[in-house]
Amino acid sequence: MALRVGVVGGGQLARMMIAPAVELGIELRVLAEEERMSASLAATAVGDYRDATTVLEFAREVDVLTFDHEHVPQDVLAALVEAGVAVRPGPDPLQFAQDKLLMRARLQELGMPQPEWAAVTDAEQLRAFLDAHGGRAVLKTPRGGYDGKGVRVVSTAVEADDWFAALTEDARGGALLAEELVDFTRELAQQIARSPSGEVRAYPVVETVQRGGVCAEVIAPAPHAAGRLSDVAAHIGVGVAEGLGVTGMLAVELFETTDQRLLVNELAMRPHNSGHWTQDGAHTSQFEQHLRAVLDLPLGDSAPIATWSVMVNILGGPADGALDERFAAAMAAHPAAKLHTYGKAPRPGRKVGHVNAIGDDLDEVAYEARAAASFFVD
Amino acid sequence: MALRVGVVGGGQLARMMIAPAVELGIELRVLAEEERMSASLAATAVGDYRDATTVLEFAREVDVLTFDHEHVPQDVLAALVEAGVAVRPGPDPLQFAQDKLLMRARLQELGMPQPEWAAVTDAEQLRAFLDAHGGRAVLKTPRGGYDGKGVRVVSTAVEADDWFAALTEDARGGALLAEELVDFTRELAQQIARSPSGEVRAYPVVETVQRGGVCAEVIAPAPHAAGRLSDVAAHIGVGVAEGLGVTGMLAVELFETTDQRLLVNELAMRPHNSGHWTQDGAHTSQFEQHLRAVLDLPLGDSAPIATWSVMVNILGGPADGALDERFAAAMAAHPAAKLHTYGKAPRPGRKVGHVNAIGDDLDEVAYEARAAASFFVD
Repeated sequence: MALRVGVVGGGQLARMMIAPAVELGIELRVLAEEERMSASLAATAVGDYRDATTVLEFAREVDVLTFDHEHVPQDVLAALVEAGVAVRPGPDPLQFAQDKLLMRARLQELGMPQPEWAAVTDAEQLRAFLDAHGGRAVLKTPRGGYDGKGVRVVSTAVEADDWFAALTEDARGGALLAEELVDFTRELAQQIARSPSGEVRAYPVVETVQRGGVCAEVIAPAPHAAGRLSDVAAHIGVGVAEGLGVTGMLAVELFETTDQRLLVNELAMRPHNSGHWTQDGAHTSQFEQHLRAVLDLPLGDSAPIATWSVMVNILGGPADGALDERFAAAMAAHPAAKLHTYGKAPRPGRKVGHVNAIGDDLDEVAYEARAAASFFVD
Repeated sequence: MALRVGVVGGGQLARMMIAPAVELGIELRVLAEEERMSASLAATAVGDYRDATTVLEFAREVDVLTFDHEHVPQDVLAALVEAGVAVRPGPDPLQFAQDKLLMRARLQELGMPQPEWAAVTDAEQLRAFLDAHGGRAVLKTPRGGYDGKGVRVVSTAVEADDWFAALTEDARGGALLAEELVDFTRELAQQIARSPSGEVRAYPVVETVQRGGVCAEVIAPAPHAAGRLSDVAAHIGVGVAEGLGVTGMLAVELFETTDQRLLVNELAMRPHNSGHWTQDGAHTSQFEQHLRAVLDLPLGDSAPIATWSVMVNILGGPADGALDERFAAAMAAHPAAKLHTYGKAPRPGRKVGHVNAIGDDLDEVAYEARAAASFFVD
């Protein structure tokens, strides 16, 4: 009897679990939001993940339930746990991925390095925060934002008028998250795998290059990070994973500040764009590792198999939607580049695939990945 | 519109095409022999590959048709070609994989090095062959044998009485294939990918270790093969692929003789056990390469990504069928070993999975793969 993993959400992260699931003989089931999603090959159900009955019905046929995203509401998660479903990561760690204010407060309790922050409920409080932090702040809606959505850099409270108005109309009340605008030289990401038994594996810390608030490129390991920097990153990652009780894959997005500190930016409790390089550059991909972790199987080796790996996202793709037709040209020019597609219709800025390259020379590897990806963008 | 590849046969070779197909966005369809086959995740049809109507119906929905095995009869292949289906490899090369006598004759025309051989139709002819070859010969039924089936080492004609009797009862007539018993030091395999456009890529020649006529282990590249030996192997492989007009993956099994010649033993026109190491040890796995080749996409880089790769087959598995329960122990002891399972019920001698390991030190790599595989065998 094969082990059965249920994934809520039919996006590309679920899709990329298919390959390792097939090889390991794990039966993957996917509850997709709609037909023709990225993970449709493994989609055994289509339904609304906000509906407890739908998710409970789906969960009945699996050994463990995990996620393609962190948006399953807490009341649905509670109903699953109540019904005896093994939910990994569990509702408790997931709340910190769902609510950035909860996350900041909890990381503070754990003594994790992070930007200065405050919960602000009105313009007055935001002004006070701006005054105390050089007149600028990053303002975030605590829930629902990702890839730059729900995030604004503001220098006056007026710029947040609409968000404060929305807050007062929201029956649940709440606050916005104000964070200091960190002076950073670059962004890093630390991935950790953790199993219910408590086994932990750290991947090498990577450099993530963002463009327009979206991850464009990842270099693994992060250049000039050997030694203290990578030790600190791994220490933070393991501390967050253990402190929050995360099971499965955790990504900790970090700022490297101009004064060489590492500060926690965001968390993701699932496979993450910063780890796509592991498909072709590590002994164990983050997708295999996530399956092993949520099933409480022993974790795989997270070491790289090459000196350098570079991942470049394919964003948007050609306007005519003919992603496939670029394949031959990209393959012919870059026979060692690894193309990964998500089966999604291209539209501006949408992640529709990525390219990995590995090798000994970083300049060459980065060129390979960038040049191969460039075939898919107009 | 995704490219669609139809695979006739639902075994592990079709199963292992699923992972690269998902990543490349290729729609894989499988005509399986029965329910619950290895490739069942992608099985879109179940039916008899010997029935032209069944295969034609299946082929209607794909852009190109390829195979998990070489057993589709020539009359079915002819009907497919007649109906305009892109069949790769085509009927013409496939006949040489289906009939060892045809293969020997054609390789002789191509000037390929091979064991001395003869077609023998009765005991008299076999005796003559034995007399001319030191009193021993390898006798083969030309059709249907693999993994040591249909192969006998004989030193008297009496040992083939049953096969000659079967020949005389066969309305199609025919002959047996007698081959000299080659004095070899080891067995090698050379894999070649070739596309309809004529692009060709050679994988490094590998050493295959056979036990009881079944492949037990593969070392890539073959030790002590750098230079002339690997050049000769690649030259033979390319010569066979081009000479027979093979499209997709070709495996040429070779004897390395005690006097250091390479002789062609067997051919396989599909992904092959000797290339499973490429899943974790080459830039482009043989399964991705086969898909690219049959779709006439540019071929991927066939170079290794590590100094050494070793593949060890999992043969038989535990008598109680509990393959899964050995997972945790194997994973815990060998976190860098890559486990691949075929979703098949274990029975003695049956290939139910394999383990790959890669690294810089051959002894360590071989130990990793062997030790991890040993968990699955009683």
